[in-house]
Amino acid sequence: MSTALVILAAGKGTRMESDLPKVLHKIGGAPLLHHAMLSASALEPERTIVVTGHGAELVDAAAQEFDPDAIAVRQEEQLGTAHAVAQARDALDGFDGDVIVLYGDTPFITTDTLEQMIAARAAHDIVVLGFEAADPGRYGRLIMDGTTLDRIVEFKDATDEERAITLCNSGVICADARTLFDLVADVGNDNASGEYYLTDIIGLANARGLKATAVTCDEAETLGINSRLELANAEALFQRNKRRALIEDGVVMQAPDTVFLSFDTIIGRDAEIEPNVVFAPGVTVESGARIRAFSHLEGAHVSRGATVGPFARLRPGAELAEDVHIGNFVEIKNAAIDEGAKVNHLTYIGDAEVGARSNIGAGTITCNYDGVMKHRTTIGRDTFIGSNTMLVAPVAVGNEAMTATATVVTKDVPDGAMAIARTEQTNKDGFARKLFSILRAKKAKQAKG
Amino acid sequence: MSTALVILAAGKGTRMESDLPKVLHKIGGAPLLHHAMLSASALEPERTIVVTGHGAELVDAAAQEFDPDAIAVRQEEQLGTAHAVAQARDALDGFDGDVIVLYGDTPFITTDTLEQMIAARAAHDIVVLGFEAADPGRYGRLIMDGTTLDRIVEFKDATDEERAITLCNSGVICADARTLFDLVADVGNDNASGEYYLTDIIGLANARGLKATAVTCDEAETLGINSRLELANAEALFQRNKRRALIEDGVVMQAPDTVFLSFDTIIGRDAEIEPNVVFAPGVTVESGARIRAFSHLEGAHVSRGATVGPFARLRPGAELAEDVHIGNFVEIKNAAIDEGAKVNHLTYIGDAEVGARSNIGAGTITCNYDGVMKHRTTIGRDTFIGSNTMLVAPVAVGNEAMTATATVVTKDVPDGAMAIARTEQTNKDGFARKLFSILRAKKAKQAKG
Amino acid sequence: MSTALVILAAGKGTRMESDLPKVLHKIGGAPLLHHAMLSASALEPERTIVVTGHGAELVDAAAQEFDPDAIAVRQEEQLGTAHAVAQARDALDGFDGDVIVLYGDTPFITTDTLEQMIAARAAHDIVVLGFEAADPGRYGRLIMDGTTLDRIVEFKDATDEERAITLCNSGVICADARTLFDLVADVGNDNASGEYYLTDIIGLANARGLKATAVTCDEAETLGINSRLELANAEALFQRNKRRALIEDGVVMQAPDTVFLSFDTIIGRDAEIEPNVVFAPGVTVESGARIRAFSHLEGAHVSRGATVGPFARLRPGAELAEDVHIGNFVEIKNAAIDEGAKVNHLTYIGDAEVGARSNIGAGTITCNYDGVMKHRTTIGRDTFIGSNTMLVAPVAVGNEAMTATATVVTKDVPDGAMAIARTEQTNKDGFARKLFSILRAKKAKQAKG
Repeated sequence: MSTALVILAAGKGTRMESDLPKVLHKIGGAPLLHHAMLSASALEPERTIVVTGHGAELVDAAAQEFDPDAIAVRQEEQLGTAHAVAQARDALDGFDGDVIVLYGDTPFITTDTLEQMIAARAAHDIVVLGFEAADPGRYGRLIMDGTTLDRIVEFKDATDEERAITLCNSGVICADARTLFDLVADVGNDNASGEYYLTDIIGLANARGLKATAVTCDEAETLGINSRLELANAEALFQRNKRRALIEDGVVMQAPDTVFLSFDTIIGRDAEIEPNVVFAPGVTVESGARIRAFSHLEGAHVSRGATVGPFARLRPGAELAEDVHIGNFVEIKNAAIDEGAKVNHLTYIGDAEVGARSNIGAGTITCNYDGVMKHRTTIGRDTFIGSNTMLVAPVAVGNEAMTATATVVTKDVPDGAMAIARTEQTNKDGFARKLFSILRAKKAKQAKG
Repeated sequence: MSTALVILAAGKGTRMESDLPKVLHKIGGAPLLHHAMLSASALEPERTIVVTGHGAELVDAAAQEFDPDAIAVRQEEQLGTAHAVAQARDALDGFDGDVIVLYGDTPFITTDTLEQMIAARAAHDIVVLGFEAADPGRYGRLIMDGTTLDRIVEFKDATDEERAITLCNSGVICADARTLFDLVADVGNDNASGEYYLTDIIGLANARGLKATAVTCDEAETLGINSRLELANAEALFQRNKRRALIEDGVVMQAPDTVFLSFDTIIGRDAEIEPNVVFAPGVTVESGARIRAFSHLEGAHVSRGATVGPFARLRPGAELAEDVHIGNFVEIKNAAIDEGAKVNHLTYIGDAEVGARSNIGAGTITCNYDGVMKHRTTIGRDTFIGSNTMLVAPVAVGNEAMTATATVVTKDVPDGAMAIARTEQTNKDGFARKLFSILRAKKAKQAKG
Repeated sequence: MSTALVILAAGKGTRMESDLPKVLHKIGGAPLLHHAMLSASALEPERTIVVTGHGAELVDAAAQEFDPDAIAVRQEEQLGTAHAVAQARDALDGFDGDVIVLYGDTPFITTDTLEQMIAARAAHDIVVLGFEAADPGRYGRLIMDGTTLDRIVEFKDATDEERAITLCNSGVICADARTLFDLVADVGNDNASGEYYLTDIIGLANARGLKATAVTCDEAETLGINSRLELANAEALFQRNKRRALIEDGVVMQAPDTVFLSFDTIIGRDAEIEPNVVFAPGVTVESGARIRAFSHLEGAHVSRGATVGPFARLRPGAELAEDVHIGNFVEIKNAAIDEGAKVNHLTYIGDAEVGARSNIGAGTITCNYDGVMKHRTTIGRDTFIGSNTMLVAPVAVGNEAMTATATVVTKDVPDGAMAIARTEQTNKDGFARKLFSILRAKKAKQAKG
């Protein structure tokens, strides 16, 4: 049966102390909303409806950034979760599969858990996701009768006996579209806060003789985020999970706690990640590559056998071929570095291509910006760029060529040629001694005066 | 009523394994002594007396660095806490308010706790600060009779029943000056260690019909520091507290555990601090600024909308105006960078001013040191400094000016002008190929030989 | 009595998910095998036999790297621990002291524990190393009768009563050579897995009236490593132990959890290590030196009073004399920096000597590589190297000399002389304004077109 998602993402998140809508705060470099969408995307949903309210334009855009086909519907007033789900009715017109209701601020629910819910739908009309709470506190309780979910009791309405139950409600629900919207239409708001609660549909379903059940998952999956501290804790949990998964896949990390990963970081088996490395989004590191300490990577691709760092920065568009060596205090941006090339010290390579086996001397800079526009630099294969070479783009250096130390390259250099721009060195005998004695005397005089 | 402080800071701290006096070891970039003085400073004490002994000159200087009006008195021999307090008598001559006795190695007592002690003084002659100990161990126990503090029992003198008490003595005491010094004068040293103990004044007070009570605080506030390991733990506690306070105020930190703060670090709401950032003392970051990974800041001011790093170092006197961008492998020292200016790569700006919207090319260096003295560089607004420009200070570049790549600027550059110092590039055809074949032959020959 | 070691290192380590033999995975920068050999080396063993199998050539080489006299013997098939020990018989021919059987994947057993085992041999024929397990799980249990070790029971063969025992078997055994090999020869493989178990020798020994006993150590010492996660945890344990030992010896660390140490890192008392410092192997830091944040050191020596970083990289062969100052974005490789010299910003010094009190300006590069070979640079004492100086090696600069900013030094500079290679600066009035207006017009046109 086909599946649709309804993701509730209208809340303001007052406790976040931020101007940003809650679901756009990030963990692992991606908005909470994307995490919720990512796990569900493996179900290949036929439609994805995102219910937005506070900061709706930003949230709509984020949803469509993740999935251009996502449909944003507006909840003008926040009147409760059932009310939010009701806003998705028109967008699901004509859809008759299963609907899963998710939350934009609940990033950790796994694909596996969602698949269990869908499997449980085979024998039940409604499936609720529950969890065994270590400290059930004020969560709603799931009242089971065997495998049947009898009802969900809010903490404030629960008897002492019911409060002793530790199976709690995550809020995530799965039902076929017609059943869901029929029940939601009947939910009232005759309660203390005057809100329409999605949980009320279980009571309504039982009254109609429908069958409900619960699937349970690890409590950590249901973690919702309401404050900066909870966000920080969620980030820490995300990092621990992702590091552990990579290590189990054979990535070598001497100090996993100091490696920061993004939601989309890909690292191959036997790749080595030293302490203190940050992976911003968009990075792939192939098997057997080595990322040394104090490196920062974003939007970069590091091939097999390449070494990066320590103290290297790869910016978006950095493409390192096999066996490339990027050393310390080196920045690579929007540049392809071909097989076996070396950029070892104090260098900026931006908007450029460097050919295979070429060696870029210390202090080299691609002068890619003329104050108004950016231009490209091309360097051939087996070429030696002398230290402190300035490559004033647009410019090309050929194959098997070289530049003398400190050359400002403004014209193309042919294959096999050497570019040089040099003023002869003069040694002025005794000058240094004289100059320093004058300067010291001047300083002494100033100190007195 | 007015307040005075007596801060005991004479101890050697043998277990610190260090030549530095104990109270001068640092947490959050400030000596323990300053932390003790800082919490109490909110009480606006009329006099602050610091009792010093071991390393007295260094400790006196540190006390006066924090508060130039602090009075250092010498305890020549360390004969116990009552003896230490007695040394402050002359310095408090004529003062008749409340005296609080604090400890230079106890950095976490909060202003709020001290204010509670002063409030409790209204109805009692002496107020002692106690804490509920998770593991009371060998601490002295506070023996209460209702709200009255009956006496303080040292662990070694306590009965089993008294040892079962978990309310322990922090050593911090508040009393009016006359009462305090009268009681201290009567303390004897007829005990195993032959020392004069301040805690004995409670017994003496009760014997005279004076009323004592206890105020309690969180055990963590009373943490004293006696070894390097305790110092490391105290530092960790300081960092956790400070990070948490900033996050609760709306600062964004992806990985709080990797951000190191100083006692005086100020960061605005919605400012973003990436992983691995060190704030040495004297840093202010305004709302909405972004400090990227692997940055080190000290004595710097970062305005709204500015971005710093990754891999940036701001040294004392770095003043970044709004929307400034400081990039990677860049050092800024004693320099004002005006609104919207950019210093993006591999640059050293020291003793300088950079005007609004100017762009400083990669590899630029302000040559501010002639081997003897430092000189200033001035760069105007809307100016473009080409890559690898050397600015030999003292020198000024005007507004809307530019320097060509690799220019050594030794003379001022007028508004709108371009400075250039360039030797023409020559391409020597075939030279590189020939040179490499010669060098490779030479190397092969050496390898054989 | 003399001692010999038999170290079992033939296992594949399938669960490591790696092509590298298990015992060659590293903690603290050294292979597990070296850790096992290091603790035992204090016993000054007369012979060290390493039993290798999977990846034998690599493991043999690693054993001999640690101890050139180590004897590698091959276990062609992995038929159990008794079978592995039996392979060492020939290599111990003629040796009649004590043999200790250790494991290449068990890096934390201390010298102190091994010495206790040898001491216990005085009164017993066989000594087994046991530990009190917090969670004994499926470990073999040591069945004691007073101080006599009666037998070792595998978990699967144990009665409920025996399973309640928490004293477990580490596998480490000490016996005199003849006894050990006699017993091992009698071990059979009549069990479920068809392997020859070393633990069976205890039963055989008792049957012959020999006396066995157990020495116990902390459970953490017996930690074996079978997966990447266990390796990561072992690394964390190694780091905690090493940091703690250094702090107790008087090293100052503000944030010990962010300092990564190697097995051979040496740091003196009152040396200060700021947050985020990585010590790769081969580093010595003397008392009172300071290593600032974000520094990376390998194979380097830092003398008393020297400062390194922040953002400094010392590579193998970096020798810093007293009071040297290495600043930010500086790389030092294979270079001796003499007393009081300063290399403060954005510099690469490789294959060089820098004399006492010399100052190396920002952006200086030793151009040590001509594309084929490396060459040396020598700088005298009290010399001033101007910013952006390129030192084209082989080249020498004398004492009390200087180089002007941006000089390319290709010829030696005599004592007291100044080297300069400078093209005169020209200011082209109005040129910058004109150029920018042309570029902006061009860009606008491109944007339209």
